[in-house]
Amino acid sequence: MSVNPFETIKSEKRNEGRFTIVSDQVRVNGKICPYDYLEMKEGVCILPFHQGKVIILKEYRYPIRSWQRELPGGLIDPGEEPAEAARRELLEETGYHAKTLIPLGAFYPSFGSTNEKIYLFEAVCEEQTETDLDEAEVLGLEEISVPELERMIASGEFMHGAGLAAWAKHCCRKEEIVK
Amino acid sequence: MSVNPFETIKSEKRNEGRFTIVSDQVRVNGKICPYDYLEMKEGVCILPFHQGKVIILKEYRYPIRSWQRELPGGLIDPGEEPAEAARRELLEETGYHAKTLIPLGAFYPSFGSTNEKIYLFEAVCEEQTETDLDEAEVLGLEEISVPELERMIASGEFMHGAGLAAWAKHCCRKEEIVK
Repeated sequence: MSVNPFETIKSEKRNEGRFTIVSDQVRVNGKICPYDYLEMKEGVCILPFHQGKVIILKEYRYPIRSWQRELPGGLIDPGEEPAEAARRELLEETGYHAKTLIPLGAFYPSFGSTNEKIYLFEAVCEEQTETDLDEAEVLGLEEISVPELERMIASGEFMHGAGLAAWAKHCCRKEEIVK
Repeated sequence: MSVNPFETIKSEKRNEGRFTIVSDQVRVNGKICPYDYLEMKEGVCILPFHQGKVIILKEYRYPIRSWQRELPGGLIDPGEEPAEAARRELLEETGYHAKTLIPLGAFYPSFGSTNEKIYLFEAVCEEQTETDLDEAEVLGLEEISVPELERMIASGEFMHGAGLAAWAKHCCRKEEIVK
């Protein structure tokens, strides 16, 4: 199971607006077939705690035409380390500085159709220093308790993929510490 | 916060291989700007238990050139209910029938760039009936204990976005029941 069962016969790349589509021809199980996927930049997502509460955002997400609760996050800039990007995005989106930043590892949001990789972090935050946040009309901030976040995850009020992945990792990490 | 802050000025759609790209012009905060996103079909992902163990797959994922541990899942066919798709995908990918199927709600893997929505389910499985699975060369099956899955999630051996979302929902649901 350790061998790559796909042989790349041909590979093309093209830009379509903000997306880069890779169109390959692959040989798998003796057959030649096309394989298209999106090439995407790496990102970060942060689970921020402040005085025991979780800082979450409310943002309007145009592709699904609805307001969504989510954790802060964004793309990693060229030359930036994932942890730097996490501190920067946390500050830009919430106005909070990370006092402690704990890496939770990475995950793939949709590895069947993109190569997107997101690095997850848990942060313990100091007092909020920036309140003049950009795009105030499309972004709101809430501090909620852990049981309230758990209730929102169970009820479907919190549907953010990277946020759910961070929560899964946070829970398993806690499990490990308890053990 | 309940009002849509985006006004769609223009909307175009085009197919690029297996992807559909929506290219809109939107007015937000008084400015007109482009907004591209991918239109994607809805999918399902199933967290299957068999005799207390979790059934996971090992699959080669070409976009990231690596073998990945993941939960079964796939696209919902036209006219199919999410629960039907979950039963079908579980059977096709693992050979297991769902005795009990519990909806865990849906989530959005990446609502900043796609409208993709995935419905999550927890399944309690009966004995395996199908062993002649397709694409055997790129798909492997394992049954692992819950502490082993938790260890894999914490260590980064399990990096599947929909699988992590299902686990987060499973944990919060259990929390609710315990309460």
